[in-house]
Amino acid sequence: MVPSTSAGEDSWTSPGLDFLISVDRRTRGLGGALQQAIRDGIHAGRLHPGDPLPSTRALAADLGVARGTVVEHADPSSFPRQGWAAVMRRVLAEAPDEAFGYADPRGRPELRAALAGYLGRARGVRATTANLQVCAGAGHALGIAFRALAAHGARLLAVEDPSSPRMHEIAAGTGLDVVALPCDGSGARAGVLAGLGADAVVVTPAHQYPLGVTLSPQRRAELLAWARGTGGIIVEDDYDGELRYDRQPVQALQALDPGRVIYVGTTSKSLAAALRVGWLVGPPQLTGQVADVIRIINAWPSSLEQLALARFIETGMFDRHIRRMRGIYRQRRDLLVATLSQRVPQLQITGIAAGGHALVRLPPGGPGEHELVAKAALAGLAVDGLSGYRVGGVPTDGREQPALVIGYGTPAGRSYRAAVAALGDFLRAAYTPQTAPPSRP
Amino acid sequence: MVPSTSAGEDSWTSPGLDFLISVDRRTRGLGGALQQAIRDGIHAGRLHPGDPLPSTRALAADLGVARGTVVEHADPSSFPRQGWAAVMRRVLAEAPDEAFGYADPRGRPELRAALAGYLGRARGVRATTANLQVCAGAGHALGIAFRALAAHGARLLAVEDPSSPRMHEIAAGTGLDVVALPCDGSGARAGVLAGLGADAVVVTPAHQYPLGVTLSPQRRAELLAWARGTGGIIVEDDYDGELRYDRQPVQALQALDPGRVIYVGTTSKSLAAALRVGWLVGPPQLTGQVADVIRIINAWPSSLEQLALARFIETGMFDRHIRRMRGIYRQRRDLLVATLSQRVPQLQITGIAAGGHALVRLPPGGPGEHELVAKAALAGLAVDGLSGYRVGGVPTDGREQPALVIGYGTPAGRSYRAAVAALGDFLRAAYTPQTAPPSRP
Repeated sequence: MVPSTSAGEDSWTSPGLDFLISVDRRTRGLGGALQQAIRDGIHAGRLHPGDPLPSTRALAADLGVARGTVVEHADPSSFPRQGWAAVMRRVLAEAPDEAFGYADPRGRPELRAALAGYLGRARGVRATTANLQVCAGAGHALGIAFRALAAHGARLLAVEDPSSPRMHEIAAGTGLDVVALPCDGSGARAGVLAGLGADAVVVTPAHQYPLGVTLSPQRRAELLAWARGTGGIIVEDDYDGELRYDRQPVQALQALDPGRVIYVGTTSKSLAAALRVGWLVGPPQLTGQVADVIRIINAWPSSLEQLALARFIETGMFDRHIRRMRGIYRQRRDLLVATLSQRVPQLQITGIAAGGHALVRLPPGGPGEHELVAKAALAGLAVDGLSGYRVGGVPTDGREQPALVIGYGTPAGRSYRAAVAALGDFLRAAYTPQTAPPSRP
Repeated sequence: MVPSTSAGEDSWTSPGLDFLISVDRRTRGLGGALQQAIRDGIHAGRLHPGDPLPSTRALAADLGVARGTVVEHADPSSFPRQGWAAVMRRVLAEAPDEAFGYADPRGRPELRAALAGYLGRARGVRATTANLQVCAGAGHALGIAFRALAAHGARLLAVEDPSSPRMHEIAAGTGLDVVALPCDGSGARAGVLAGLGADAVVVTPAHQYPLGVTLSPQRRAELLAWARGTGGIIVEDDYDGELRYDRQPVQALQALDPGRVIYVGTTSKSLAAALRVGWLVGPPQLTGQVADVIRIINAWPSSLEQLALARFIETGMFDRHIRRMRGIYRQRRDLLVATLSQRVPQLQITGIAAGGHALVRLPPGGPGEHELVAKAALAGLAVDGLSGYRVGGVPTDGREQPALVIGYGTPAGRSYRAAVAALGDFLRAAYTPQTAPPSRP
C-alpha cells in the first residue's frame, strides 16, 4: 500500500493501489486532489447525489495527472544501509582504475557473473556472463526486450489481461502492437495464444500481476509448446520470483527452455527501487538485437553500483536480505488478511502468499469498483480497481467480479497498521446495508 | 589516448583515437587483432607490398568488431575515490527512507537544484529544477533530445561534419534523418543551415569534436538567428565545456536563448564515465516530449548516486576536482605538443587548449590516413584518422588535408609519457624520406 506522492513522481512508475492515509504526511497528493475534484464537481453541479461517481482514471485525467501509483514492494525503510555502505566503501577502495572509465554496456563482468550464479541457484535460470544483460530496472529491461523482438521481426505482442498499464505503455512505446491474452486462476490462458497470431508474449508466471496467482504447470507446458511450435518468444517478467514465502518458489520458466525465453528481473522489489538495476537473460538468437538496442538507447547503471551489487551478492548479504524481506511481507500480508476477514467477512482475498500485493474480490450487490474508488477518494483513500488493469482499460464492471488491487509493501512500519485499519473501516462501512428512513404516516 | 580494450567494451562508446602501446597490459585487444589481420592478409595473398592498406574501419569489420574506441577524457586514475566515498557514506547515513523507493524520473530534486546552480555559475546555463532532466550520460541525453524533437515534429537533423560517428548513430537510432553541416576553423558553418532545410541542429560549440575549435561569436549569432527565424531547435552538446584551461571558457550557447536551445552535458569527462550521469536542459515547449521519452525508455541513474553527486557539488568538491583536471589535461597536452613538434616538426597540431583531444594535420606528400592507420596497427599503434568522423564516413583523402584525432586523457599517469614517445617515434619514421637502394652498375 503506497501513500501517493506527487503525480510527477508516481506517474512514471508501475501502477498499483493508490492508498492515502490521512495521517500520512503525503496525503496532499493525488488523493487530496481527487477529494477536492469530487467536491468541486458536486459544488459546480456536475455531480449529483446518486450519480455514478467518476473513476480515479477519469478524475486523474480531469486533474491533468497520470493515474496509477507505484506498488513499492520493497518497503524503502528496509534498505540495508550499513551493508550497502560497507560494500560501496570496499569497491571505492579496491576497484581497479579502469572501473572508473567507460564500462562494457553489457554490464560489469563481476556483476554478470554474480547475477548468473544467484539466478541459477535462486530461480533455476540458465544464465552466463555471455547471455546476461545488466539493465536500469525491469521497465528498462522489458523495453529493451520488446525493441529487440521488434528488430528481430516481431509485430504483435500478447500481454496478460489483466496486467500493469505500464506494461502496455512500454510495449506500445517500442512499436509493437499489443493483443490481450486472458488470464484466470491458473494464470495466462496459454491455449488461447495460438489463435491470437502473436509473435511474442509477455507473462508474469511466478506471481501474476495483478491477479496474484501462479502459472500452473499445465499452462507452462502449453506456453512452451506454443513457442516451440510457432517460433514465438516468451518474455518472462519474473515478478516477485524470489519473494514467495509460503513455500519454495516455483522455478523460472526460462529454466525449461532458455532458447525460447527472455528472462527479466530486478532488485527494485527485493532491495530498492532507487538502485535502478535490473537484468535480461536472452536466447542466443537475440543477442545481437539486444546489443544494438542498448547501444542506441545508451543507458546502463553506474559501474560503481554494479560492483557494489556484485559484492553484495557474493558475500551472501543479498540472500540474507531477501530472507528478511520474505518475513516482513508475510507479516504484512497476515495483518491485511486478518483485518479484512474480521471486519468485512464477505470480502474474498485471493492470490498466493508472495511478494507485496493481494487481490480483494468485492461481493456482488455492493458498490461497484468505480463508485467504491471515488467514495474512497472522498474518505482520503485513493484506492484502485482491477478494471484499470485491463488491456486497453476496458472496465470490468458487469463482465467479471469487481476487485481491488492492494499493495502491502508500504507504508513503512508504524504507518502500516493504521493504513490497514483505515481500509478495513472504510470497506466495512461500504458493505454495511443502509437502513431506509421511516416513511411518513 | 586510450589503450583499446576488448572490442566488446569499446564498440559501444564514443569513438576517438585507438592508441595501443605495446607496453600496456591491454595490447591484446583490437590493435593486436588488427596486426594479426594484416599479417594474415599478407600471408593469404590478399595484401601485397604496395597495396593501399585497409582502414581500421574495414579491418574492424573484417574482424567482426565495431570500430571506434573511447576518448575517456577523464583519466580513470584521477577519480576522487576518498571524496566520493565520503559523500556516499553521508548519503547512506542521512537520506530519508523515501530516497530508497521509486524516484522522480526527472531526477532527484537535490541533484537538479545542485546542477542548476553549478551550470549557472560555471557555464552561464539558464537551468532550474523544472527544466533540467537528469540522464544516464550524454549519449543517453542526446538520444532523449533527438526523440523529443522527433515527437515534436522534427524530421531532419543537421549534424556537424566532421563529428563523432556515435552522434550519427544515436541520431539515426531515433528515427531522424541526418544531414551534414560542414565545419571549419570557426566551427559549424551556421550560414549553410538555412539551405539544408533542417528542423534542428546538434553542435559542439565549446570544443568542436573532432576539430578542436570553438564556435566563433559570429557563428553563434548566425546559429541563433537561424533558430529564431525558422523555429528550429539547437541541441548544444557542451563537449568539454568546463575543461578549457588556457583561459575562461566561453559561456554556453543556451545562455543566449534558452527558448531555442536544448543543452546537454555529462560528468563523464570531468569526473568519471563510470558514473553514467548526464543532464539535459530543455526549452519549455519540449518539456512534455522529454517527459514522455523518459517514461517510455524508463532509464535513469540510481537515486543514491544522484544524491552523492548533489552533495559532491554542494560541498565544492566538484569545482575543486574540475580545477585539478584542467591542470592534468594541460600537462598532458603540453607534453604531446612538445614531443610531436620536436620529433616531427612538419606536423601541425590544431585546436584550442581544452579537454583531452587534439587534431594532428598530416603534411602533404606523406602517407595517407588509411595507410598511416594500417601501418600503425602493424606497429602496435591503432591510430584513427579524421576521415572516420565524416558524416556518412566519406573518406577525406583528396578532399581535405588528412589528420589524426588524438585523445590524451589516457593512458594513466606513468604509461602516458611512453605512449606519447611511441607515437612520436612512429610518426617521425613515417615522415622520414626512404633512401633508394643503390642501382647496380
